[in-house]
Amino acid sequence: MRRPLPTVEQFVQGIRASDRVLLGQAITLVESVREDHQVLAREIIAELLGNAQPSNTLRIAVTGAPGVGKSTFIEALGMHVIASGKRPAVLAIDPSSLVSGGSILGDKTRMERLSISENAFIRPSPSGDTLGGVARKTREAIVLVEAAGFDTILIETVGVGQSEIAAERMTDLFLLLLLPGAGDELQGIKRGIVEMADFLVVNKADGDRVKLANQARGHYLNATHLLPPKPNGWQPQVMACSALENTGIAELWEAIEAFQKHTLATGFLQENRRQQALYWLEDSIEAGLKNMFYKHPAVKAKLAEVEVEVLAGRMSPTEAAERVIGILRY
Amino acid sequence: MRRPLPTVEQFVQGIRASDRVLLGQAITLVESVREDHQVLAREIIAELLGNAQPSNTLRIAVTGAPGVGKSTFIEALGMHVIASGKRPAVLAIDPSSLVSGGSILGDKTRMERLSISENAFIRPSPSGDTLGGVARKTREAIVLVEAAGFDTILIETVGVGQSEIAAERMTDLFLLLLLPGAGDELQGIKRGIVEMADFLVVNKADGDRVKLANQARGHYLNATHLLPPKPNGWQPQVMACSALENTGIAELWEAIEAFQKHTLATGFLQENRRQQALYWLEDSIEAGLKNMFYKHPAVKAKLAEVEVEVLAGRMSPTEAAERVIGILRY
Repeated sequence: MRRPLPTVEQFVQGIRASDRVLLGQAITLVESVREDHQVLAREIIAELLGNAQPSNTLRIAVTGAPGVGKSTFIEALGMHVIASGKRPAVLAIDPSSLVSGGSILGDKTRMERLSISENAFIRPSPSGDTLGGVARKTREAIVLVEAAGFDTILIETVGVGQSEIAAERMTDLFLLLLLPGAGDELQGIKRGIVEMADFLVVNKADGDRVKLANQARGHYLNATHLLPPKPNGWQPQVMACSALENTGIAELWEAIEAFQKHTLATGFLQENRRQQALYWLEDSIEAGLKNMFYKHPAVKAKLAEVEVEVLAGRMSPTEAAERVIGILRY
Repeated sequence: MRRPLPTVEQFVQGIRASDRVLLGQAITLVESVREDHQVLAREIIAELLGNAQPSNTLRIAVTGAPGVGKSTFIEALGMHVIASGKRPAVLAIDPSSLVSGGSILGDKTRMERLSISENAFIRPSPSGDTLGGVARKTREAIVLVEAAGFDTILIETVGVGQSEIAAERMTDLFLLLLLPGAGDELQGIKRGIVEMADFLVVNKADGDRVKLANQARGHYLNATHLLPPKPNGWQPQVMACSALENTGIAELWEAIEAFQKHTLATGFLQENRRQQALYWLEDSIEAGLKNMFYKHPAVKAKLAEVEVEVLAGRMSPTEAAERVIGILRY
């Protein structure tokens, strides 16, 4: 026999008291496909947002090609954040979870020190049918971890595709990790990703790679000077660090705090979050609308009918679409 | 007083007889935002598709960075196509028409010889609110020009963004034009675009640029050998030409005909068009669904209401989306 779920009130109180078991359970509800779980998750979030305080959190996207050392970097940065009196939470958006149904990203075993710290919270990527679905779940999880008092939210992605765009749309700061001694061509990094970055950080600047790391830093420094200015008015910072040897991490965190101060002072951070919320509203509406539409039995039947005509070339897709939508005309 | 529009029957007969005035007028109906025009356009297309013959047309996407000489190239290729007994039509997808409300692409003045040929048809890019809208209109125009007996459809795009993906989804062959002596970095061409190409053609291989063109050809030859094989089983061809001096055009056309023969023989061309039709069906359904939804007065009212809450941070986008969609629950 399964234990009954806690009530909304219990969840809300527990999360506010930073109870990590209840926090984890609430995120599981957000990720669940069960209708009753989703209703409960929405009620919890509604309650938590109802008394929202002005946020003093910072949401950071951390990305980079596989092998760049994201986990080690996040652990080093996370431990530094804890030492400076803050509480980091690590979430992830991993499109590979679409295929595997699971995810190694944010895997606690890869962040040994951070995962046992009382002041940190680590959660692997949700799985889902679509990247949009995965991203929407991660975004809801941000609300929950912030309500639980985590103030530095690190969103990890794999750095090779669309998940960076989703991560950028739910964070205040975009940090791209780079390897020493390899151009972005070789690192498989799309130019668009480089252009999104507020911080370009060459990791693994240690041992005999220090020189290469400085070369890479110089290369990206030049590259960023050629880019158009970012809407937030921030000149992208190019830095080097070694997560392994813990060098450059303190300087990076100082610069990140300067970024936060700058974007709070200009009001960009607040306005950006408002615009992001509108984006996710639209995104959620469209996903929900499609979901509702394609589930409708009459739509399914009509769609099957017109697809045959379209495949045979006897009906244009526009005409067929009009007939399917016609079912819902009101 | 305006003349009344021709009837569906007049349009259908006229287009089948290759009457270019009626053809142009029908495309204008497709592009119109007026409801009655759209109904008429759908009726015309439905009639034309009703008696569709197995298609022997070839749809070619032509793209490349600004300055690569697309118009001159299309004119040279088009004139060669005419000389070989075929009838080319030039259409365009230009996202800049979203901003300007007009388009210079496919501008007849830039294709002097082609535009006065009886055996060619040139139409500038439609304008529209969204790239998706512009692309859907161009796709409908393909049906019309093919019904009018044009058998070689050239879809021109600007080569720098999303419009290439739309063009790829409505064509059988993707041709990327390149400049001599500049890597794709410099030409502003995204790697994804290079990977889509069936033909990479270095244009302007004339005068003292012949050597540079051959170097560029070698560079792209190496690059394409590193790419994974295309689903159509075609090894991308890398060629050089001079549209200005009309060299390399005949060889290119011969290779294009080999491509057509190959993809027809394997059945890829036919199957690809079927899959494209399903893609455009889904695309049209989703566009139509959103359009219908956001026009609904109760949706508009509820959306305005929840947006205030979302912007104030008092309601999550998920909750707000649920409330807006709830209006239509059935």
